[in-house]
Amino acid sequence: MEEHMNTTELGNYQPQHFLWQAEDGVATITLNRPERKNPLTFESYAELRDLFRDLVYATDIHAVVIRGAGGNFCSGGDVHEIIGPLTKMSMKELLAFTRMTGDLVKAMRACPQPVISAVEGICAGAGAIIAMSSDLRYAGPDAKVAFLFNRVGLAGCDMGACAILPRIIGQGRASELLYSGRSLKAEEGERWGFFNSVSADPYAAAMTMARAIAGGPVFANGITKTQLQQEWNMSVDQAIESEAQAQALCMQTDDFVRAYNAFVNKQTPVFEGN
Amino acid sequence: MEEHMNTTELGNYQPQHFLWQAEDGVATITLNRPERKNPLTFESYAELRDLFRDLVYATDIHAVVIRGAGGNFCSGGDVHEIIGPLTKMSMKELLAFTRMTGDLVKAMRACPQPVISAVEGICAGAGAIIAMSSDLRYAGPDAKVAFLFNRVGLAGCDMGACAILPRIIGQGRASELLYSGRSLKAEEGERWGFFNSVSADPYAAAMTMARAIAGGPVFANGITKTQLQQEWNMSVDQAIESEAQAQALCMQTDDFVRAYNAFVNKQTPVFEGN
Amino acid sequence: MEEHMNTTELGNYQPQHFLWQAEDGVATITLNRPERKNPLTFESYAELRDLFRDLVYATDIHAVVIRGAGGNFCSGGDVHEIIGPLTKMSMKELLAFTRMTGDLVKAMRACPQPVISAVEGICAGAGAIIAMSSDLRYAGPDAKVAFLFNRVGLAGCDMGACAILPRIIGQGRASELLYSGRSLKAEEGERWGFFNSVSADPYAAAMTMARAIAGGPVFANGITKTQLQQEWNMSVDQAIESEAQAQALCMQTDDFVRAYNAFVNKQTPVFEGN
Repeated sequence: MEEHMNTTELGNYQPQHFLWQAEDGVATITLNRPERKNPLTFESYAELRDLFRDLVYATDIHAVVIRGAGGNFCSGGDVHEIIGPLTKMSMKELLAFTRMTGDLVKAMRACPQPVISAVEGICAGAGAIIAMSSDLRYAGPDAKVAFLFNRVGLAGCDMGACAILPRIIGQGRASELLYSGRSLKAEEGERWGFFNSVSADPYAAAMTMARAIAGGPVFANGITKTQLQQEWNMSVDQAIESEAQAQALCMQTDDFVRAYNAFVNKQTPVFEGN
Repeated sequence: MEEHMNTTELGNYQPQHFLWQAEDGVATITLNRPERKNPLTFESYAELRDLFRDLVYATDIHAVVIRGAGGNFCSGGDVHEIIGPLTKMSMKELLAFTRMTGDLVKAMRACPQPVISAVEGICAGAGAIIAMSSDLRYAGPDAKVAFLFNRVGLAGCDMGACAILPRIIGQGRASELLYSGRSLKAEEGERWGFFNSVSADPYAAAMTMARAIAGGPVFANGITKTQLQQEWNMSVDQAIESEAQAQALCMQTDDFVRAYNAFVNKQTPVFEGN
Repeated sequence: MEEHMNTTELGNYQPQHFLWQAEDGVATITLNRPERKNPLTFESYAELRDLFRDLVYATDIHAVVIRGAGGNFCSGGDVHEIIGPLTKMSMKELLAFTRMTGDLVKAMRACPQPVISAVEGICAGAGAIIAMSSDLRYAGPDAKVAFLFNRVGLAGCDMGACAILPRIIGQGRASELLYSGRSLKAEEGERWGFFNSVSADPYAAAMTMARAIAGGPVFANGITKTQLQQEWNMSVDQAIESEAQAQALCMQTDDFVRAYNAFVNKQTPVFEGN
């Protein structure tokens, strides 16, 4: 039946522009140009966008962790490979580029797998956007997050930042970061609710959470993610009706019955994602 | 005149499934099955929903405090009386149930009385939703709030949680609680803005605030509550126009004149709610 | 060309009801009735509204700082000159007044210049609204912010407070301030994200930020401000498309090229705002 839905398995996916490893339902994306602090290129943007779009149909991946190689997360769009060419493009080409980068964020928010960023060191520009667009963020003590768009002559409105960042850290703090381009450090980021925690090994923290999520009721988790997106600008009453429908749907899954039976039998439920 | 509006008095209301006491405009709801940590049943859900709907027309109640008996707030939907039956229902019946529980939150947000939760001990599932859906929340040092829906095989989108919780504590922290189902403790909850304060006697803190509210300009307080709901997903300019109308209306109340006269005469205003 | 757009210069603007000084693209508004803690009158409201509307067309002002004279920010609407007359007005006149005050906030949010409040001492009623409606807020250690509308018999929904305040500090904390009218102190305000920092000289802190903003890519800064407003109640996907368009536009400014060239030449970019 599922094949009629174009489902796929991505465990053995072989990316060209970053690393991918998957085990027990948890996939890790590693941005892997450590000598340049893992910048993005046109090609890596497009491949990430396509991967997150494919994750909608993946039956074997239930949580995604993103990290960078070599002690930094991501330095953003490569100055030579992206910024330089952009300064020479027509408006039509520029819009095609900004739409492609925006499509990465749309795809990250649209896939059912919670996305978890493990942030060490530099996390700047498009790197900061990838962290922001994740569901959860774990920091190492040296994490520095910079929405530095105004430092390169651009506006802070990049890939959804003016909408999403205020919902994470509040309007006043988001305004400061977007107008100044300054770095948000790890501890301050935890205090503001940008980071879920700060620890010596943020990848381990991210993996612990990812494994817990992948071991849970993954169909229901995907509905949680859908609703966090759907209800973004609904009225309160619309959101409540939308949740009534979505939760009724989850109440007809076998995972709900498994949890009930486990409770009655004083056992730990084993979820199967259906 | 007011009787044509179907106004009512609820001071002597006699509920069947929880306790109710009212004095000087402040009513306290006490969830009262302490041996089971005050779970909800189909009947108590429905009675709470009906009570909050009736509060729209109550002329004698100006603030509502909710607490649990015996050192816990509420353990959520009763496993035997609610979860068990739900596992056997049709989709039509399930939607009727999730709509009924959503209607409780809609009614809590629609009544003009600010609702204040005093949270001790366990506050889980639907209990966490009742606290979240209140206007204000006061915690005891042992409060533990768990949006534990994914632990029972369900999605975090229950009764408005994906819309309301992010507005209280931010999108990243709300996502963590909804994906993990973990408990939020009292101090952390205060730091995140979920709890307005933590103290040894949260019911006393809630009552102090409730009495201050009930002694204030209660018609205007109801308009504040209405606008907090109305403007949820308006644009900034729409919200400003909506407030211009709502505040002009309040400026024609006698309470506004009373406050002005008291100020001029260096007295404390005595508000009458009209 | 620009004259066809009704552009103007405001550096030498001579207000009647407050002070104005401008240097290097940064203007300071000083509310200047220190003996009464800088209350607003009908005339000063209207003049502030008109000034912020004119700032849309100003080519020489790139950031605006607001402060009060004599150690206090602003005590709100003058009791004798505003509150008294309001108690005698018709509904039509009241709505004209609340719309005028709302128009000040609309104008503060619509001008391209980031607005920065430097808050010392009393910041109450309409004063609290002016601080809230600014992009950034810097506090002195004695700052006290009071949304005290319910203390004067009114609702908390004044000039956008029920929409804007929850986005800055969260729904629960905003509800507490609006229902109680209590003062928010400096340190608590920083902890909640209302204030961007607390320091002995908040005007100096505000000026440091204002000068940095005015020395940056000011056209792009104006787009950042526009998008923070535009995307307020968009869906996430709508916001991302809106930012794709807005950022593509900024990528055709010379400031973007200047930043790229400076980077390549290992220089600091000098922005010109076009």
